[in-house]
Amino acid sequence: MKRLPVIAITMGDPAGVGPEVCLRAVRDPRVRRFCVPLLVGDLEVLRRHARRMRLGGRLAAVSPEAIPEGALGPSAPAPVIDLANVAARHRVFGQVRAALGRAAGAYIECAVRLVLEGRAAALATGPIHKEAFQAGGYAFPGHTEMLAHLCRGAGGGGGGRRPGGGGKREGAGEPVMMLAHGRVRIAHLSTHLPLRRAIGRIRRGRVLRVIRLLAETLEGLDRRPPRIAVAGLNPHAGEGGLFGREEIEEIAPAVEDARAEGIDARGPEPPDTIFAKLRGRVFDGAVAMYHDQGHIAGKLMAFRFDAAGRGAVRGVNVTLGLPIVRTSVEHGAGFEIAGRGEADHASMVDALRLAARLVRSRAAGARPRARRVSARPR
Amino acid sequence: MKRLPVIAITMGDPAGVGPEVCLRAVRDPRVRRFCVPLLVGDLEVLRRHARRMRLGGRLAAVSPEAIPEGALGPSAPAPVIDLANVAARHRVFGQVRAALGRAAGAYIECAVRLVLEGRAAALATGPIHKEAFQAGGYAFPGHTEMLAHLCRGAGGGGGGRRPGGGGKREGAGEPVMMLAHGRVRIAHLSTHLPLRRAIGRIRRGRVLRVIRLLAETLEGLDRRPPRIAVAGLNPHAGEGGLFGREEIEEIAPAVEDARAEGIDARGPEPPDTIFAKLRGRVFDGAVAMYHDQGHIAGKLMAFRFDAAGRGAVRGVNVTLGLPIVRTSVEHGAGFEIAGRGEADHASMVDALRLAARLVRSRAAGARPRARRVSARPR
Repeated sequence: MKRLPVIAITMGDPAGVGPEVCLRAVRDPRVRRFCVPLLVGDLEVLRRHARRMRLGGRLAAVSPEAIPEGALGPSAPAPVIDLANVAARHRVFGQVRAALGRAAGAYIECAVRLVLEGRAAALATGPIHKEAFQAGGYAFPGHTEMLAHLCRGAGGGGGGRRPGGGGKREGAGEPVMMLAHGRVRIAHLSTHLPLRRAIGRIRRGRVLRVIRLLAETLEGLDRRPPRIAVAGLNPHAGEGGLFGREEIEEIAPAVEDARAEGIDARGPEPPDTIFAKLRGRVFDGAVAMYHDQGHIAGKLMAFRFDAAGRGAVRGVNVTLGLPIVRTSVEHGAGFEIAGRGEADHASMVDALRLAARLVRSRAAGARPRARRVSARPR
Repeated sequence: MKRLPVIAITMGDPAGVGPEVCLRAVRDPRVRRFCVPLLVGDLEVLRRHARRMRLGGRLAAVSPEAIPEGALGPSAPAPVIDLANVAARHRVFGQVRAALGRAAGAYIECAVRLVLEGRAAALATGPIHKEAFQAGGYAFPGHTEMLAHLCRGAGGGGGGRRPGGGGKREGAGEPVMMLAHGRVRIAHLSTHLPLRRAIGRIRRGRVLRVIRLLAETLEGLDRRPPRIAVAGLNPHAGEGGLFGREEIEEIAPAVEDARAEGIDARGPEPPDTIFAKLRGRVFDGAVAMYHDQGHIAGKLMAFRFDAAGRGAVRGVNVTLGLPIVRTSVEHGAGFEIAGRGEADHASMVDALRLAARLVRSRAAGARPRARRVSARPR
């Protein structure tokens, strides 16, 4: 019996498209080839979605002690950790309910516990609805911040915690958001902050930490030292100080620090060409200085909209710097299409595949390899 | 004899790829079908580039009084306004020389004069090299600022000067940069400023002016009222004030002002999905709040890089708010490949085609059409 990594999948908001994309993903034969998908949610809600969407395939409640260990065959029921926390009157589609936000939060708490206890190897999260989530009593701006909270004290946070290496220790423990779509991988210096404040977070130590985390992650995934491009902040990366000094004072020194550690980092690169070069495989990954700098590029590559505004979403959101492997779909709870059977599970399959690859790359050991880098810091 | 618009084309820096892409463009049969391309440069430099690149086709010096009026046949020589301002010792490739920057500036001055005098209908500019340009005595950050200076007092500046309409009169006379690549058209609130300062320029009056200029331009080009999307500044367009207030205080009011004038404007839209929607034709044009917000998206759609970092560039840079029609190639002077015959003239053909379309749309009259817009400001 082939041992595959168990990936705990949170169902997301019960009223959104989360249950639907989860159901489609756990039945997908591609997924069963590389992992044991373990749903964490409400069995009755899942069944209701399956009926509504006319999705076949069986579901089987399992206890945390009886999670299947081997590959699931095509007809094997999908295992579900059933929190049974959605009352019949809340089994709705596309509605914001505090009770459902609370239920979605409980799936995350349970799934993180399963991973921290070693019962699952990784976490892939379905989409929550922010309004419901906060109404349900979770004061976090999003998954990432809640996961940082839940993992606190669980130790290990990737390369960012490596001692020494110069630079300040700004935000040393904060998780880092990476967008991944195929070979396009973009790590972000900050996420949900006003742009003015995000600019203030661009400090040498923080830039270095994000470069390190991205480099370690990509080296694990690609099995070779990655070429990391670091974006500037200002037009033309500041044009030698003419359009801003963050490049000179913070970003370039961080790139030099990284190179001194043997990381093949370059930059600061002009923000308006770095991502086109990343797509062209001039680099293996890029560091973005703020949320939209990376997200405009990442979503332009991973999203497709038709003229009616209907979107097809690919790509994965990955949290670096946590003690656990965590990926997420790139789309939201899709309340406007929930219950219609229109949601595509491509992004969830991407999230599961990348989670499995990250588990393998961690298992293969984070032994630092010899990195070759030219002496000149560029 | 078919009358076509004369488009004055500045050769750009003599040591860059400008002469080469100009030569290829003026010989291109597609170009000769929609305009009379009129080179403004140095005839000996052009001949030297043509020999080096083994480009055929004749060139003929013409005086401003004797510019051809009808379509050029495939074998007709390309007319050149010869400023004869590059001494033999400066006929080099890929070198920064003050004398060449000065020469490039003279082409712009001459070409703008030709357009303002009515001898040419539009201006399309070849690439200058900023360092040489400034060494040559031109203290402008780029073409756009120089053109604003040269056109000052020449009157007319598009819809931005329309009286009334509420809002402050921030930067009322400044030209506005639009990137255009096929149906993707993005106008920018500012260009070459540190990002911190660009944020400070986001004011209701300025946003309104850019919406108006873009709407007028697109209505002229598309012959129908355009759907204009306006980007927010902050992640998720501020998430209701949670991640910044510029959307609430400046951008949303400007969108409402525009709608009150009958423009089908919407927004503020989340910056990380607006451009994917623009590509999907959910909108006809977008307003970007700062240089890179629009340029990351525009260049990602128009540029292609291979793994060696070699780029293929499409797309056009258009200056709105000037009394003249002006387009430009999207690429730089390419000193690293000048003289090798590797430069692609696709962006110059795009620039000429769009200039010709803008001339036609202006000639067809800027009579405001009835615009339909729902009463609710969204």
